[in-house]
Amino acid sequence: MIWRMSSLFLRTLREDPADAEVPSHKLLVRGGYVRRVAPGIYSWLPLGKQVLENVTRVVREEMDRMGGQEVQFPALLPREYYEATGRWTEYGDNLFRLQDRRGNDYLLGPTHEEMFTDMVKSEVSSYKDLPVTLYQIQTKYRDEARPRAGILRGREFLMKDSYSFDLDDDGLKHSYAEHRDTYIRIFDRLGIKYKIVSAVSGAMGGSASEEFLATAPTGEDTYVACHNCGYAANVEAVETAVAAPQDAAAQPALRVLDTPDTPTIDSLVTVVSALGIEITAKDTLKNVVVKVRYPGVKEPKVLIVGLPGDREVDLKRLEAAVAPGEVEMFEAEDFAKHPKLVRGYIGPVGLKEAGYEYLVDPRVAVGSAWVTGANEAGKHVAYAVAGRDFDIEGTVEAAEVRAGDVCPRCAHELSIDRGIEIGHIFQLGRKYADAAKLDVLGKDGKPVRVTMGSYGVGVSRAVAVLAEQLHDELGLVWPREVAPADVHIVAAGKDPAIYETANRYAEELGARGVRVLYDDRVGSVSPGVKFKDAELIGVPTIVVVGRNLADGVVEVRDRQTGEKAEVAVPDLVEHVYALARG
Amino acid sequence: MIWRMSSLFLRTLREDPADAEVPSHKLLVRGGYVRRVAPGIYSWLPLGKQVLENVTRVVREEMDRMGGQEVQFPALLPREYYEATGRWTEYGDNLFRLQDRRGNDYLLGPTHEEMFTDMVKSEVSSYKDLPVTLYQIQTKYRDEARPRAGILRGREFLMKDSYSFDLDDDGLKHSYAEHRDTYIRIFDRLGIKYKIVSAVSGAMGGSASEEFLATAPTGEDTYVACHNCGYAANVEAVETAVAAPQDAAAQPALRVLDTPDTPTIDSLVTVVSALGIEITAKDTLKNVVVKVRYPGVKEPKVLIVGLPGDREVDLKRLEAAVAPGEVEMFEAEDFAKHPKLVRGYIGPVGLKEAGYEYLVDPRVAVGSAWVTGANEAGKHVAYAVAGRDFDIEGTVEAAEVRAGDVCPRCAHELSIDRGIEIGHIFQLGRKYADAAKLDVLGKDGKPVRVTMGSYGVGVSRAVAVLAEQLHDELGLVWPREVAPADVHIVAAGKDPAIYETANRYAEELGARGVRVLYDDRVGSVSPGVKFKDAELIGVPTIVVVGRNLADGVVEVRDRQTGEKAEVAVPDLVEHVYALARG
Repeated sequence: MIWRMSSLFLRTLREDPADAEVPSHKLLVRGGYVRRVAPGIYSWLPLGKQVLENVTRVVREEMDRMGGQEVQFPALLPREYYEATGRWTEYGDNLFRLQDRRGNDYLLGPTHEEMFTDMVKSEVSSYKDLPVTLYQIQTKYRDEARPRAGILRGREFLMKDSYSFDLDDDGLKHSYAEHRDTYIRIFDRLGIKYKIVSAVSGAMGGSASEEFLATAPTGEDTYVACHNCGYAANVEAVETAVAAPQDAAAQPALRVLDTPDTPTIDSLVTVVSALGIEITAKDTLKNVVVKVRYPGVKEPKVLIVGLPGDREVDLKRLEAAVAPGEVEMFEAEDFAKHPKLVRGYIGPVGLKEAGYEYLVDPRVAVGSAWVTGANEAGKHVAYAVAGRDFDIEGTVEAAEVRAGDVCPRCAHELSIDRGIEIGHIFQLGRKYADAAKLDVLGKDGKPVRVTMGSYGVGVSRAVAVLAEQLHDELGLVWPREVAPADVHIVAAGKDPAIYETANRYAEELGARGVRVLYDDRVGSVSPGVKFKDAELIGVPTIVVVGRNLADGVVEVRDRQTGEKAEVAVPDLVEHVYALARG
Repeated sequence: MIWRMSSLFLRTLREDPADAEVPSHKLLVRGGYVRRVAPGIYSWLPLGKQVLENVTRVVREEMDRMGGQEVQFPALLPREYYEATGRWTEYGDNLFRLQDRRGNDYLLGPTHEEMFTDMVKSEVSSYKDLPVTLYQIQTKYRDEARPRAGILRGREFLMKDSYSFDLDDDGLKHSYAEHRDTYIRIFDRLGIKYKIVSAVSGAMGGSASEEFLATAPTGEDTYVACHNCGYAANVEAVETAVAAPQDAAAQPALRVLDTPDTPTIDSLVTVVSALGIEITAKDTLKNVVVKVRYPGVKEPKVLIVGLPGDREVDLKRLEAAVAPGEVEMFEAEDFAKHPKLVRGYIGPVGLKEAGYEYLVDPRVAVGSAWVTGANEAGKHVAYAVAGRDFDIEGTVEAAEVRAGDVCPRCAHELSIDRGIEIGHIFQLGRKYADAAKLDVLGKDGKPVRVTMGSYGVGVSRAVAVLAEQLHDELGLVWPREVAPADVHIVAAGKDPAIYETANRYAEELGARGVRVLYDDRVGSVSPGVKFKDAELIGVPTIVVVGRNLADGVVEVRDRQTGEKAEVAVPDLVEHVYALARG
């Protein structure tokens, strides 16, 4: 393969696009890999399409190697499949819905559990047909509320999704483990740096779901890791130990305090301490009101969350806890409709009686005493004791997780880091099989309910993740396996001999199966522009055919290390061929 | 690659699916290649996905060979691009439209002229950047009124579409010719039998648009061919010569006839002849009323078409003539609203005065005399002379084309045949470039308006077309290039030695890059069932390892010719390898 820059459909940009915030978005646009069509919807230009194909090939090869069988479902799907499992409604605004010319309801598939379950139900009838793993590499649609970061979080994107079907739990565990190994091979081959983290809380069953998070400071996911016991989890899955009950009888009686002008926890601590009750932020109980909008339910539900005053609410954790509900902040007009909720002075005492649902952080122990709002402007209460002065209806994981929090497994300190989800493996169990009544005849002639796993790799996202992890101030730095070409030959100068030699290299290498990008542009394009483009585009090996040609050498640059070597003109093809073959 | 039937996700069917009418649909479902999800929307099972990938590979290789550059656009597209060219409305009900969560309008792309034009406008600025040909292999959506025949005419389908951008007409002609050659290579490699036919009438510019029609008796397209001069055209594009004017003065005066009980042309001919005016059906003027519904226009337009009584109206030809209008029949309730149009007795005299648009077949010459309706129940007129007794507002190509009609080029007889459109090449010219103001700077520094071509291959449709053309009463007969495997090894019998040998063949062939489908099923699956499956699935070479093994031979069957050969056990791998390599 030879691409010549003189005819390649490529325009590089010197300036970052105005709407780009993260490096991958900036560089993929500047390097001429992708272009924006609409929010979260992108086109792939030739270089980008090639990288996307390369990632796709790696994923397909590894899925085939593990015995996965490739199929392809439509993206346009009739409503009834998703109605049966409730997801037509549950997906809420995230689902693209439409009608055909006859007024029948359709959706654009966000994920295909229902379809695969239905297909296996139609095609498979005996235990002999299982286990089976089916996969597809297919375009998916989600109407994200906040599409961002170019192709990192798009509304139309390419995913590999696969589904395992097993007769029993051991079979499912085996299929899960095979997928886990396959994902490790895929991401290792792609050259992505990642961490495997638990995606569900320990209480719900440990390894039933794990995420592959590509490490990246711009990542939307936050995960904790314990360097002592190896525990690693998405913060949404971190479970806080429930605090041991305390003796309520040891606490003083509830006391109302005048606390005007205490808009912040800090100001409250100062005022209360001045009243002779020595406290820190940790001793205050902050009460946060939110609306939870459940799909298919018109009116949002009001939820009040109590947590220690030194912690912020983490809306993503709260949202994970109330899924499939979506959390919205309580605004001034909401407070206006709820006069019992006095903004800035909300407290738990009497909330239940007023008809509100009140949940607390697990650190709020039964019998513990708090300084908290009095539900009256300018007043707080001290010695509000959980279980004595107010009811706790339950706990909720809504507080932020911090570096230094204790590991739920070994009680050592947790570290915290950010990542981008590139893979997710999930022991679904029988949820979808139950909905579809997916049984096969067992060895004994009796029906066996099938158990399923669901597994995903973000294929287009992986391209962005690679750009996010592998770049420098000059541009992209592709690993060879996914790079749009093996070698970028720059003809630098005006001497026709340069172009003759460079062209010969391109053709000889191309003929030997090396993928060549050859900058053959003449005229107004200076060597400096060509070098800048080569660095921006990020092909692993750059060959400069220029002035040194007169001395019988050409320069070979390694894009990643920046190392330069002079290679004798006759040796160049062999040299580059060896690099390309690794 | 080795597929083992014992674990392959495949269920073959002995019965034709109830909704299937054409062979490809029946066999692709029965052979376990595709499954229906909704009208015109199908899933691809492993065998089908493999065939689809094989076709895709051939198309991609040939597009790359001609210098096409692959890109990929989204399927989900914002309305504004299609608003600018009017196609948001023009597509009518054929377009899937939807809104996102913010209420913005989107569509599922039926074709991408607008998107490619816009991209080239953004990326290209100089004559040096042209010509360029871009292509994509991408999922498209059309909300067909009558999805039919499985994947032959689907609502979600895979297409290769490409677009050429040139500076001038000669460039466009060259790009068009290159595409034409490429399509010939593609369809030849795929093993499709096809005919290249003109898709626009000669008057509009000859070779500006051609279709590749796969010959098939079940085809929806009808084309004519002249074996004398080589003319070939879709019937929609056949232009009828306008008849030479006749001398109206030579005709008798208009005469009203009593013609009760003449519901058909035949009965009219009998009654009129009995009145002493000797005529045949050719001398009567039949007047057909239709409604033409234009996209975005609420009320349909009433159109009356006059044509010789021995010809039927061809609604597809009429629709092509009034595009983008859609033609609907005039029903009883429509006649009720138009009392001047007397059903069965409609005639051209006075139509224009009554405010109706009246168009005639080109065979209706100015000055020619006709027996036709009198616009009064039970009455016709004779000697109604065009241009004397009634006005002709224009001609329209609405009459059926018949075998034996004269060739518009050489006046020899035309033959007629049916086909399925698998490719379409089209010199668009500057329509989209004008809409987008797509200019580049020319050599002289002045802007040059770009000229475009648009080219399409139905990739998923090609799979169905192959099944339609290549099958027999036993099942599918794939050409090697697209077959899901090179060889289908059948282990026929119960002797473990059979399975050992068959398995060794599978592994040795697989290791040498031969694509193997190995029927290793044991137990209740009889050799007869295995043979039936092999014939249905249609892999080109079938190897039977069975009873003859004891005599040191295995059987090699050619699926297409049915020829059988006995091959010595040690020679089998070499023999099949040679067949697979062609």
